[in-house]
Amino acid sequence: MKFQNVKGTRDFYPEQMARRNWLIGKWREISRRSGFVEYDGPVFEYLELYTDKSGEGIVSELYNFEDRGGRKLALRPEMTPTLARMVAARANALPKPIKWFCVPNFFRAERPQRGRLREFWQWNVDIIGTTEEANNVADAECVMVALDFLREVGFSSEQVEMRISSRTLIAQLLETLGIEAARHAAVYAVLDKRDKMPAEVFVEQINTLGLGEEQRAALLKLGEARGPEGLAMIEQLLGGNQPDESPLGRLKRVLGLLKLMKVGDYCVFDPGIIRGLAYYTGIVFEAYSKGTLGRAICGGGRYDNLLKEVGGPPLSGVGFGMGDVIVLDQLEEMGLLKLDQSPEGIYVVNEGMERIDDTMVIVSIVRFDLKKPCNYSYKRTSVKKQMQEASAHNVGHVIIVGDRIALKNMATGEQVDLSFDKKLANEADCQEFLAELRTLLGDSAKST
Amino acid sequence: MKFQNVKGTRDFYPEQMARRNWLIGKWREISRRSGFVEYDGPVFEYLELYTDKSGEGIVSELYNFEDRGGRKLALRPEMTPTLARMVAARANALPKPIKWFCVPNFFRAERPQRGRLREFWQWNVDIIGTTEEANNVADAECVMVALDFLREVGFSSEQVEMRISSRTLIAQLLETLGIEAARHAAVYAVLDKRDKMPAEVFVEQINTLGLGEEQRAALLKLGEARGPEGLAMIEQLLGGNQPDESPLGRLKRVLGLLKLMKVGDYCVFDPGIIRGLAYYTGIVFEAYSKGTLGRAICGGGRYDNLLKEVGGPPLSGVGFGMGDVIVLDQLEEMGLLKLDQSPEGIYVVNEGMERIDDTMVIVSIVRFDLKKPCNYSYKRTSVKKQMQEASAHNVGHVIIVGDRIALKNMATGEQVDLSFDKKLANEADCQEFLAELRTLLGDSAKST
Repeated sequence: MKFQNVKGTRDFYPEQMARRNWLIGKWREISRRSGFVEYDGPVFEYLELYTDKSGEGIVSELYNFEDRGGRKLALRPEMTPTLARMVAARANALPKPIKWFCVPNFFRAERPQRGRLREFWQWNVDIIGTTEEANNVADAECVMVALDFLREVGFSSEQVEMRISSRTLIAQLLETLGIEAARHAAVYAVLDKRDKMPAEVFVEQINTLGLGEEQRAALLKLGEARGPEGLAMIEQLLGGNQPDESPLGRLKRVLGLLKLMKVGDYCVFDPGIIRGLAYYTGIVFEAYSKGTLGRAICGGGRYDNLLKEVGGPPLSGVGFGMGDVIVLDQLEEMGLLKLDQSPEGIYVVNEGMERIDDTMVIVSIVRFDLKKPCNYSYKRTSVKKQMQEASAHNVGHVIIVGDRIALKNMATGEQVDLSFDKKLANEADCQEFLAELRTLLGDSAKST
Repeated sequence: MKFQNVKGTRDFYPEQMARRNWLIGKWREISRRSGFVEYDGPVFEYLELYTDKSGEGIVSELYNFEDRGGRKLALRPEMTPTLARMVAARANALPKPIKWFCVPNFFRAERPQRGRLREFWQWNVDIIGTTEEANNVADAECVMVALDFLREVGFSSEQVEMRISSRTLIAQLLETLGIEAARHAAVYAVLDKRDKMPAEVFVEQINTLGLGEEQRAALLKLGEARGPEGLAMIEQLLGGNQPDESPLGRLKRVLGLLKLMKVGDYCVFDPGIIRGLAYYTGIVFEAYSKGTLGRAICGGGRYDNLLKEVGGPPLSGVGFGMGDVIVLDQLEEMGLLKLDQSPEGIYVVNEGMERIDDTMVIVSIVRFDLKKPCNYSYKRTSVKKQMQEASAHNVGHVIIVGDRIALKNMATGEQVDLSFDKKLANEADCQEFLAELRTLLGDSAKST
């Protein structure tokens, strides 16, 4: 082979493209039914849009290049900077809340590995500009959309779990335990990796944080906390009886709303969900499948300061991202990837080249007037060979153009001759043929 | 504004995104009904994939950058090299003919101008690997798909014209006129620009080609040739009576097939269609609108040697490309851009925060069980304000959650109370509510 694709990118042959389109179609369907509208930005932006948010260190992870004028550009590695830029440009004109989603491709200039490619697609869902009083509902709605997708494509609550925590709750707890703010990041880092290390390593790492005995004991308990018991334990550590507007009250309300929306079975409080990025200011969540891949299917959270920090307007936000690679991998592994394979369209077969003109007329009628997919053989072969091609194309019906014109239902095998027995010489003939074809296809559809 | 998008790229706010999705949706629908299947490649390839086809001169027109390993990459400026690479990798396994389409974005590192942007989307349709005997049908089919789209979105044959020529026919004519092969490129260049210059400049340019009197006279006649008369004139210059397998016979057959497929009104023979690229080996075509933009809406042709030349297999090919910028511009200018604005979905309004839980349950039922878009207000506002939000969302129905639950048809204004008058406390309640809602929505749909 003279040339190959770049490692970490993918060629989408029709079968892979069908999978990608299926997934993106589902993402769109689920987003729209929850009232989100689609947007997109350019594939590349000025490099400084990314360094401004993430620092110069990000440059080596980006594909970057120069404009003709020498300005530095980069392929987008994520959507947030673009989203902030776009919202900022119309901050006053856009009605709030902004419920937007997108299905862009992103790029990472890193070594590809299983589940992490250099070009991938990602579903992004965000709610921007809610008022304080609506934040719980917006939080629940965001988690709900992710779960609505996972449930729709067939993941049961046995197969997938939405782990939810609150960064403000954990911060409050650390403060209550007397751990000063400067040490919080170190504690977060250990909690974040809790599920990626053996229990004894977790204990060891907690022990090396330089905390007091009581603090260490509380963190070890926190490491094991999960579900309603975990929340009860935290409430106890906080001194009990947290009000509705407290971080714990809010988290409980979000979990309650998710239960109302009938996805409570999927959800569990899990203080091990931290999400490395520093900018989360409230709820954080990640979905994990019970499959073999130890990576989250999706993740997100509340980021009330982020838009302002990256040069956008001071609007609250909550959102999540879900990449195509892991979810397709998991769907496949669990046998849940079921693309529609039902027969579709019509194949037109002719009994010889002397009927090729009528074949072309019929093909154009099926495509334009019936709006149905229609194919025919480009080869001068026997009816038998053309019928084999029709089968390979998985069509619902075949029209056979010979001395007479016949319609065959490929599911039932039933074949009927049309009463129309002329050449399709003019528009009146075409209309007559079309009317009879419509009737027969209607009858044929009923009988299958 | 702190940051802006790169000049020549576009931000797709929801209203622009709806246009892009509408266009790409139409491209897909039309491709599929003509039996094409979708593929895609990566957004970037090794730079040498492009320089191998187009020479080092192409580099300055590409956005290029380096891999971590120092290998040169480039953002794709077109699909053909990727197509050739992908087909080459599976040349034997793929059933022929290969009828593929794609709707990728491409990139040009040039100064943006009206109708030419740095990032744009393009519909590509190709038929690869037909046998010699099927080439006329494949040629006609390709032109047909482009016209099927243009007709479907509303361009009449008064508004858009498909100009068709044959590079082999023009080459044969030049040979017959005694113009040696080495001068053909210069003649093509003048013919190609015929429509972009005043008649007297065309004459001047023909005169400077250094040809004999008879050759010049014939070329001036060719410059004015159009339609059936133009073809008759060329047949005369060729000595009359060209057989079916001759370039003229083939071109006439393709035009005849297009007439059979009922798009003959759009098609005209036009020897001014050359298409700058050197690789075309048969039919060439471009569609022009009668709007103000002097650029082709789409263009393509037969390229039987191209795949082999760019490192692919020795397979015949015919195809075309249509960019998003010009066609959207022309559709808008002619008032043909009609996105579906009909009301859709349901808005749930509540009479106070004490009904917020039931609101959430109902929202989840509409989304998941009815699969309908469903929104609700995040704000604690009056029913009146929520109804205004519902109108702004252009929904078909509103569910009002108060002491009773009511359904309002926004088109007719009719409002009915549901007989269901409980809280949605459990699954049985939900099912009872859902059943009544289904019935009422069915009745309501019938009455509008």
